[in-house]
Parts: sequence; C-alpha cells; structure tokens
Amino acid sequence: MTEFSLTPEHVNETIRQHWPTTMHECVEIGPAHALARYVIEQDMLRPGGFVAGPTQFSIADVALWYVSFSALGRVEPMTLTSELSIRFLRPAQGRVMWARADVDKAGRSSVVGTVKVWMDDRPDRLVSTAQGTYALPPMA
Amino acid sequence: MTEFSLTPEHVNETIRQHWPTTMHECVEIGPAHALARYVIEQDMLRPGGFVAGPTQFSIADVALWYVSFSALGRVEPMTLTSELSIRFLRPAQGRVMWARADVDKAGRSSVVGTVKVWMDDRPDRLVSTAQGTYALPPMA
Amino acid sequence: MTEFSLTPEHVNETIRQHWPTTMHECVEIGPAHALARYVIEQDMLRPGGFVAGPTQFSIADVALWYVSFSALGRVEPMTLTSELSIRFLRPAQGRVMWARADVDKAGRSSVVGTVKVWMDDRPDRLVSTAQGTYALPPMA
Amino acid sequence: MTEFSLTPEHVNETIRQHWPTTMHECVEIGPAHALARYVIEQDMLRPGGFVAGPTQFSIADVALWYVSFSALGRVEPMTLTSELSIRFLRPAQGRVMWARADVDKAGRSSVVGTVKVWMDDRPDRLVSTAQGTYALPPMA
Repeated sequence: MTEFSLTPEHVNETIRQHWPTTMHECVEIGPAHALARYVIEQDMLRPGGFVAGPTQFSIADVALWYVSFSALGRVEPMTLTSELSIRFLRPAQGRVMWARADVDKAGRSSVVGTVKVWMDDRPDRLVSTAQGTYALPPMA
Repeated sequence: MTEFSLTPEHVNETIRQHWPTTMHECVEIGPAHALARYVIEQDMLRPGGFVAGPTQFSIADVALWYVSFSALGRVEPMTLTSELSIRFLRPAQGRVMWARADVDKAGRSSVVGTVKVWMDDRPDRLVSTAQGTYALPPMA
Repeated sequence: MTEFSLTPEHVNETIRQHWPTTMHECVEIGPAHALARYVIEQDMLRPGGFVAGPTQFSIADVALWYVSFSALGRVEPMTLTSELSIRFLRPAQGRVMWARADVDKAGRSSVVGTVKVWMDDRPDRLVSTAQGTYALPPMA
Repeated sequence: MTEFSLTPEHVNETIRQHWPTTMHECVEIGPAHALARYVIEQDMLRPGGFVAGPTQFSIADVALWYVSFSALGRVEPMTLTSELSIRFLRPAQGRVMWARADVDKAGRSSVVGTVKVWMDDRPDRLVSTAQGTYALPPMA
C-alpha cells in the first residue's frame, strides 16, 4: 500500500493537457473523495437565472471522474462514465457550483460513487444528488 | 417547528398494523436519517449463500420509506416509491443486512434520499448503494 | 454467427437446477428480447391489493437476466446485476405480472437493457419501467 | 379528447423565444414520442473525437422535455427534469446526434419516458440509453 499522493494541482494540470477548454476545477482530492468547482458563466444561464440540468450533470460527472483517479492512485483521463443517475432537488441559482463525490466502492474495473451538488456556500441546500459508475481501463 | 418525536418502536408498531408480515425493522430514526435491519432467512439465499439483489432492493426501499416518515414527522404508510436506482457492489453474505438512508431533500410532495446497504458489522464494505424518491400524500 | 437456439423451456429448466424455488418463468426469449411471467401470490399483496415495489423490481431484474442469456447465447446463471433503476408508474393490481426486456447493447463484459412491467393483459398500461446492466462472466 | 396538434416548428419557435441559444432541434413530435437532433460542433469534441457524456445527457434531457409537451398537449417551457439516469454504451463519434424519447406514462403531475441516443444514421447502434421523469406545472 503506497501513500496517497494525488494533489488537485496535479489533477488539473494533467487534465488540461488533454482537454484545455475545461471549465471545471478539482479543489480537493483524497483517497475516497473529491471536490469539484465550476464558476458559472452568467450568460449561459437558463431563463430565470437557473443553472441548467445538463450543467449540473457535467459537474457531477467530473467529480466522479476525479474520484476514479483517487481509486486508481493516478490521473487516468481514459476512465469513462458507464452510467449516472441524477435527481434535481431545487432551482440552482448562484455564482459557483460545487460537487463532492465520495467513493462507495473502488474495484479493479470500476468505481461507484455518490455525488452531492450545491451552489455557493450552501452545502446544506443540495441542488442535485447523483450516483454513478466509472469504468477503469485494464491495468498495465 | 415542533421537536422530532418519532421512535423506531412507533414506526415498527404502526407499520405492523398495516403489514403484519414485514421482516424489516426500523432500528433508528432521526430528522434526516433512518436505519433498517433485516435478519436474513438462510433458506432464502441464492446458490452460493448470497443475498439476492431484490432482497437488497427491498431493504433500501424500506429505509427510504422510514426516512419519508422523518420528513413528514409522522408514520404515513401511504407514501410510495416513485423511483429508485441501485448499484450492486459486492456479493452479499452474512446473517444481518443493514440499510442506512439519509435525506438529500425533503419537500412538500417528495423526499429524495441516499441509501447504503451492508452486511453484519461491515458498514465499511457496502454491498449496495442506492438513491431514490418517495412521493408524499397531499397534506390534510 | 450461429443461429439463435435458446428456448424458454431450456432457460427455465436450467435455472430451476440452480434455484428450484423461483416463481418467475421465461415465456419468450429471442436474440434481443425476453418476456417473463410471474403469477402473483394473492396472500403476498400489500394492503389495498397492490403488488409491492420490490416484487416489481424482482421481475424486471429477472427479465434482464434472461436477456443477458440472449446476449451470451447460453444460459449462464453466474451473470450478475450491476445496477438497475426503476420508476413506478401506477398501482399494480391483478393476477399475473409480465416484464419484457429489450437489449440496448450487448457487449463482451456487460448487457444493458430496458424493461417494461405490466399486469394481466394490459401492456398499454405499464406499472413500472426500468433500465439496467448485467455483468457477464469472462469468456472461457 | 382533442386532436394532437403540436408540430416541431411550433415547439422550436416557442422554445427559442425563451432560450434563443439552444442548439437542439425538435424534428418530430407525436402524442407519445419526440425526436431531437443536435449538430455536433466539431471543435467541442473530447480528445479522440468523442461526444462528451454531458452532451449526450443534454439531448436525452431535451428529448424528454419535448415529450412532456406531448403529454401536456402544449409547449410549456416550465416543465422541469426531476430525475434522469443514463447509460453510456459506446464511444459516440459522428456529425449529428439523435435522441428519440417515448412516453412510458403521462400523468397529471409528471411524465416518465425512455430515451435512445445514436449518431448519424445508426439507430441500430445506440450510444446511450436513458430513462427519466419530468415534473409538470400544476394545471391552470
């Protein structure tokens, strides 16, 4: 068992090499959780000032992606979402969207996790909740 | 805001009046969580000694049901599952199955929650993880 | 490409060797679909005469199981549900419950399918709808 | 019972009044189904030329939205996704993404449907499959 050595900086740098235009940012990563941040482009909002469902889906998906790196112990952009279910709980309004993913199980071929999404400084008022599975590439 | 006064005993007694044959038991209930227990009938196991998927689904469903009572502040057997998604993580073997449900959002017409399922004294080794929605009856 | 040769009789016989108490029955199986039947035990109904959610889940799960045999071209009881999401649409009342599963994708390591559940002769009035994934055992 | 009179043109015009930047287009709408089209911006693709998961989610969500109009018999932009689960089946490559949603149940307060997503002229090779629920606004 090696010590956990992934950092948000390493995650962000590696991802930007593959996907330079990403707007998501990893702000925490641990052996069994990750925290993602997304600064809302105010001109992309739906009428009424709401963050669209697919935008919420995208941060949930990204947070699970980060957590798949936790499980692997390295940044592996080739992990892929197998399935994800999301429930929308409240209208999402604000400037910064956050998503925290926690690992439910990390196996050899997949990682299952639970994700909570909220706006600004209100983790007590979730805007959506999700669960999903990432498929890991075969080990070298 | 009234104080939370539901007890596992009250939950179990009320449910047995409507559904005397239930094998599930509420062992904890709070304002935002519930814990369910189910003693496995060893002659109902699948070949290999495994607890079947639908049996795991049933305790996840029941734990969410209990948590819908948390949200309502009373035992209301007429709440109904709208939807539930479950991921099976490991073979489930053991004598007692547990499920803990936590509320993600309690609204006027529905409750959304997340459920973790494990065997015996191994909450660190989940056998399944689920999320779902209960529809609440209209308020009197 | 070999011809499809699975029959409901073969599916039912093979499953009963491993799991003699099953109440579910395969009534159709083709290269990309399966139909399951379950005769409701009237003394197992919930108050009001309703088929419980977990019972509906169980036939959806079984129909997907049969369809995983379609994908493999043989009855392989060791396929396992990875995940399943179900939506409950109406109260389920009646004598016979049916579930039809259709393959969305059959791959080497998993099968994804969609399942519709109805009562008696009312396929136009679904009582639940589901989607899920079965994991296939590695090929010999 | 009134005749079904919604047209794709009416759906698209009404939506663009509320949400002028949408890239999705309704190409068919009937009493129980809808077909959505999205021309892929080739510079938005993920490395490898793949359509990202959240982009697939967005067309599945939109197709269900259109189908909620089918159920209401009018374009009602204030219907909202309650929950959606999606399974990714294959890498999605191509120029045009399609999603067909079929109604599983249309009720007074919600619509549940199933969505299939494919690329170009390959409806036989789904890239993702989804199910979800839209909440309808209370009737006037």
